[in-house]
Amino acid sequence: MPSHFEKKFSQPSAISSLMEDLNQGVQNDQMLMLGGGNPAQIPAVKALFQRQIEAAAEDQTLLEGLSNYAGPLGKDSFRQHLAELLSSVFDSEIQPQHIALTNGSQSAFFALANLFAGQREDGSLKKILLPMSPEYIGYSDLGVKDDIFTSIKPQINLLDNREFKYQIDFEQLDITEDIGLVVTSCPTNPSGNVLTETELSELDRRCQAANTPLLLDCAYGAPFPNIVFSELKLPFNDNVILCLSLSKLGLPGARCGIIVAAPNIIKTLANLSGVMSLAPGNIGPVIAESMVSSGEIVKVSNELIQPYYHDKACYLAAKLKQAIDDPRFRIHKPEGAIFLWLWFKDLPISSQALYLRLKEKRLVVVAGQHFFPGLQSDWRHQQECVRLSYAQSEEVLDEAVTILAAEIKAIYAEHDK
Amino acid sequence: MPSHFEKKFSQPSAISSLMEDLNQGVQNDQMLMLGGGNPAQIPAVKALFQRQIEAAAEDQTLLEGLSNYAGPLGKDSFRQHLAELLSSVFDSEIQPQHIALTNGSQSAFFALANLFAGQREDGSLKKILLPMSPEYIGYSDLGVKDDIFTSIKPQINLLDNREFKYQIDFEQLDITEDIGLVVTSCPTNPSGNVLTETELSELDRRCQAANTPLLLDCAYGAPFPNIVFSELKLPFNDNVILCLSLSKLGLPGARCGIIVAAPNIIKTLANLSGVMSLAPGNIGPVIAESMVSSGEIVKVSNELIQPYYHDKACYLAAKLKQAIDDPRFRIHKPEGAIFLWLWFKDLPISSQALYLRLKEKRLVVVAGQHFFPGLQSDWRHQQECVRLSYAQSEEVLDEAVTILAAEIKAIYAEHDK
Repeated sequence: MPSHFEKKFSQPSAISSLMEDLNQGVQNDQMLMLGGGNPAQIPAVKALFQRQIEAAAEDQTLLEGLSNYAGPLGKDSFRQHLAELLSSVFDSEIQPQHIALTNGSQSAFFALANLFAGQREDGSLKKILLPMSPEYIGYSDLGVKDDIFTSIKPQINLLDNREFKYQIDFEQLDITEDIGLVVTSCPTNPSGNVLTETELSELDRRCQAANTPLLLDCAYGAPFPNIVFSELKLPFNDNVILCLSLSKLGLPGARCGIIVAAPNIIKTLANLSGVMSLAPGNIGPVIAESMVSSGEIVKVSNELIQPYYHDKACYLAAKLKQAIDDPRFRIHKPEGAIFLWLWFKDLPISSQALYLRLKEKRLVVVAGQHFFPGLQSDWRHQQECVRLSYAQSEEVLDEAVTILAAEIKAIYAEHDK
Repeated sequence: MPSHFEKKFSQPSAISSLMEDLNQGVQNDQMLMLGGGNPAQIPAVKALFQRQIEAAAEDQTLLEGLSNYAGPLGKDSFRQHLAELLSSVFDSEIQPQHIALTNGSQSAFFALANLFAGQREDGSLKKILLPMSPEYIGYSDLGVKDDIFTSIKPQINLLDNREFKYQIDFEQLDITEDIGLVVTSCPTNPSGNVLTETELSELDRRCQAANTPLLLDCAYGAPFPNIVFSELKLPFNDNVILCLSLSKLGLPGARCGIIVAAPNIIKTLANLSGVMSLAPGNIGPVIAESMVSSGEIVKVSNELIQPYYHDKACYLAAKLKQAIDDPRFRIHKPEGAIFLWLWFKDLPISSQALYLRLKEKRLVVVAGQHFFPGLQSDWRHQQECVRLSYAQSEEVLDEAVTILAAEIKAIYAEHDK
């Protein structure tokens, strides 16, 4: 008789398959990797990190960081500098006691999901509400035992220029007793959607009224790496849990996630962190600390990282619209993150079948169907979308567009016959 | 109604308290830190790591490692080199498919404990058997919901020279149906015990007969950092799970744990790793890879690390025996790891009370009572021991001995009055 863990994880999880695709892609120059979330290799940003690495090698702060354990909440001086930066960004008094570091955001989600949701002492189940599907693939398997997600279909606004934008359907949003946590990524992975200020403040208001914490996953958001092309104003108060990360800044191999929350939550996370991982790693904090204390991390985000991805998003969207003239094809308005979310209305095959056909042609994308955890619905839209990363070079994007356009044309043609 | 996670982790866990002590000690020059498991700062080893860091900064392998995600099992070239090294050490055919990297050993234990133990599908509970108490403090809280440990009292052999040695009581050892995993650290944290070849092969034989995996936690063991002063011959076969680490080699801040096990277990761990942490960090693999491929990691362990700790163990043991002449005081024979395990027979106060009295005098140790997870017994021995790290300088050890000797003398005297 297997344990709950064993039963669950002897099957490949969506996120593991994606990471394995990514890993194989990194090693195989033949594949066009528009699948995983590896950040772009931006020359100016890499040059900056190389200087940080050389300085930390030279003054031996890297050696000291590697030679010692941090406490369960992570390197204290880094948390101190983060607190100062975030206080000014959120115009709020954020102390180091509000901050926990983790071995990447995914570890943070695992801890928070199982803290606020899952089975209660009395056997009942608390769930996580995703106020708007589609949502991040990495959430899908966080619940060890039960399907702990419930999510809501978005409203779809059709826009000019063959674009569309999702919107939270507040009429369907009811934060009932059995909801332990509300989670939304902002900008949204996979759609590139950015919730409007009205949506965010309504969500915040409702969560406070229900006394249910609101987790804002800002892996791509403010204040760093700030891959946001529209306005984004995040709420912060005692009911909000912010998750930030150094990954999309360009340091995914450092595994450094940052949780900002009320001190009582951080205290519980310290206990959890000791048991789950002893302590988080020091490398991210060592490399990024001076960038945080000087504020350079925000400047780099706004002046190098954000414009780079914005250009790429515009480039890929234009190329796609040009190459695929079928009116059933639309792109979610690119407002942030590093992905385009493509919608092929009435696609005659499943999104997984499309993924496999494209992979045959050397193009790796992510099938849309993985991004609807907790949506109890046979809504066809789930099978009509794919996610494309635009973190690759223009040459790779060009090739990808050619392959995708030909394949989509063929698939619709097979069906239209 | 709190979740199981919330209920459990809103209380400080033993390991988190210890890591917090360690963290405060690192920042407070006034404290004598003989508590946590931070490895010694060995000048020759640090110089070597500094050269590795400089080389990886120079050739930009560090930059590449930080700029990219690994796959869910960790950096492939590092796993390949590890497989070659371990194949020759264990005279066995170990492939990369036998190896998973994690963000430190503690993450590995958390994953493995919940995979092989905990609640089953049918509601029953599988337990983890620790064949010999005392055992590692970090295991204590691994079970999210239930007390998943069961452990067995050791036999105590009194040796000459005011030493003693634990021995597995095989008459009490029964690997029943409800045992999902057998775990032992070797060398043992906290006692510094090294299981004999006879004990290890009997344990291996019994686990195979019961079809129950045997996890050997070699955080301090062979082939690196090999902090072993006696003979240690580890068994390896399809029923054995080895956990290694770069921490005690001197890189705790890199958070790099290594699991060696049958490929089907590694496959399940890949799925678990994706969900729990996306991917393990790259910094440990980048810094240590050339040391693994050249075999230097074994040479450094045997020629620099092992002798350093052996000298320290002898030094501290001699000083303690000299300073505390009470016949009720004995030391576990120092056979490996980085700790001395002191036994004060008939100690009139609890080990936690002793810990607090010593902390008042600036000396941080770890109370023995935390090292008996799963022992359902009021065995007084649990309250009579403390663990001392000898990773500090001789000056610090000298001061610690003076404080401890005075306090122990006072405590026995209060009682003997």
